[in-house]
Amino acid sequence: METVALDDELKQIVIIDQTKLPNERRMLRLSLVDEFYEAIYLLKVRGAPAIGVFAGFAIYLAACSIKEQDYDDFYREFSKHKDYLNSSRPTAVNLSWALSRMDGVVKANAGKPIPEILEALKKEALLIRQEDEAACLAIGENALTLLKPGYGLLTHCNAGALATSKYGTATSAMYLGHERGYGFRIYCDETRPLLQGARLTAFELAEAGMDVTLECDNMVGALMASGKVDAVLVGCDRVAANGDTANKIGTSVVATVANRFGIPFYVCGPMSTIDASIATGADIPIEERKPEEVTTMWYERPMAPSGIKVFNPAFDVTDHSLITAIITETGIYYPPYSF
Amino acid sequence: METVALDDELKQIVIIDQTKLPNERRMLRLSLVDEFYEAIYLLKVRGAPAIGVFAGFAIYLAACSIKEQDYDDFYREFSKHKDYLNSSRPTAVNLSWALSRMDGVVKANAGKPIPEILEALKKEALLIRQEDEAACLAIGENALTLLKPGYGLLTHCNAGALATSKYGTATSAMYLGHERGYGFRIYCDETRPLLQGARLTAFELAEAGMDVTLECDNMVGALMASGKVDAVLVGCDRVAANGDTANKIGTSVVATVANRFGIPFYVCGPMSTIDASIATGADIPIEERKPEEVTTMWYERPMAPSGIKVFNPAFDVTDHSLITAIITETGIYYPPYSF
Repeated sequence: METVALDDELKQIVIIDQTKLPNERRMLRLSLVDEFYEAIYLLKVRGAPAIGVFAGFAIYLAACSIKEQDYDDFYREFSKHKDYLNSSRPTAVNLSWALSRMDGVVKANAGKPIPEILEALKKEALLIRQEDEAACLAIGENALTLLKPGYGLLTHCNAGALATSKYGTATSAMYLGHERGYGFRIYCDETRPLLQGARLTAFELAEAGMDVTLECDNMVGALMASGKVDAVLVGCDRVAANGDTANKIGTSVVATVANRFGIPFYVCGPMSTIDASIATGADIPIEERKPEEVTTMWYERPMAPSGIKVFNPAFDVTDHSLITAIITETGIYYPPYSF
Repeated sequence: METVALDDELKQIVIIDQTKLPNERRMLRLSLVDEFYEAIYLLKVRGAPAIGVFAGFAIYLAACSIKEQDYDDFYREFSKHKDYLNSSRPTAVNLSWALSRMDGVVKANAGKPIPEILEALKKEALLIRQEDEAACLAIGENALTLLKPGYGLLTHCNAGALATSKYGTATSAMYLGHERGYGFRIYCDETRPLLQGARLTAFELAEAGMDVTLECDNMVGALMASGKVDAVLVGCDRVAANGDTANKIGTSVVATVANRFGIPFYVCGPMSTIDASIATGADIPIEERKPEEVTTMWYERPMAPSGIKVFNPAFDVTDHSLITAIITETGIYYPPYSF
């Protein structure tokens, strides 16, 4: 199962609808720019690297749909689509990173016939995916050097295969270790409000045959106190120049508790997640989402008094002082961080 | 609305079914020992002090149902009921504390006519409730001396009026401050897996007209980083001699994050919650509950892969080093704790 696939013949992106997992495996075929936007906004596709790959395919297909054959007209339409897609979610840098990269391809081919530009865009989009897969594999190999057989590994949210092209970032070493008989015990935070840990990470790692235990986010204190966790591996959505990272909401809490218990806390992500233009985590924009995600499970049955005010940020910032190392495809970075 | 009421004429305990809130206000009338046990075990009544009050009424009504009129026969039956009720939940000391206290009443009246013993039991059970209400009020007055108007106050789970006879423990100062125009902003952790914070605390405080905001447990890092929280007030289920406290799962996580941000962390509970016979938190028995509480919301729709292993402790231990003060009806206790 590919997380994000391009069907170039039908001009469609094929994804599994991640909002339906694990109860239902529903494949989606998307061809309209509005569908691409909605898929990102509604988290049908999610995970910073997967969003980057998806955005590459999305802007390529959007470009294919442009009727104008004059370069300037074409580029005006292209920019419109790009800005629209870029507004679907604010925190993960991979979205704007992939779109900028695709934009660069158009500019580099300025004035050439449109079919040629489209061909170059397709090549670049496929390259982004290929690089992502290679990066995830390298992240896993790097992370694995820090882990011992039998380790209990905790992860938060889903920085798994479902969040990338393959292997995942935080989960890559888990997959590699599993293949090599490391016998890891994996602990998945369920990750409220949308339960990506329960629905996606526990799902994909259990499917791969790993020893997986699920717990609520607030059980991380009891779990770490029990001595069962030897290391934490999480993904990231944006890394600032000083090593502060924006990750799925709750990650900073896990980091704080791990720090108290002296448990190594590793942040895993491709170099494309590092945004050296941002000095510290304080400058990372944090997406605030709808109250209903918290108050109404599955948008069906209320779990809170109606009309209650809700605080629902999708991400939080983990201070660099709580991060043992940042693991990328190019190596393992230790403090003091300076990207 | 009384949290736990005795209808002595009908020999029933009247409670609101807390598992149905906030969607439904269903009153329950219970008269059988099995119903009492089930009400505690299934959390229809919950919260350490409320369980104590409920247990007093429950063992009184159980005693009323005993047919034997010979004291020794009566006491044998009484003990059986007491042990059975005592096995319904292991962590909150108030359950065994209330049952022991009722046991003491029987022993103190050994040999007297059974109707006289029953009368003494009823008086004691009502006294337990009356003392609990007075204790909660005193806890609130003590806590309020530590708080300033306009404070943002975070609480976890429900140590509210629904967990006690009235006022609550952690919420008592919130109620008193609200009456006196303090203008507190209240933040309620939803408290997975059973969402007592969302369903009960947010419900009762919003009903009282307070400014209430709900957040997921894992958002406590982002919330505290935002500067909106000036103090944390939580209840407790058992306090060890060294000040370690067993509280609803996740409380130790809140304490750890509060400690990082230098936010005062107050534990509120009646003196009956202090168990000086236990040296440290390591010796407090922690109840582990069913996986379905985590994997299946409302026991209806799965939120995780079927058959997944689950870690589901109902409580965790907050180390005394993380507790700014322990607030009881007799005063405010600061470290080093020695009960």
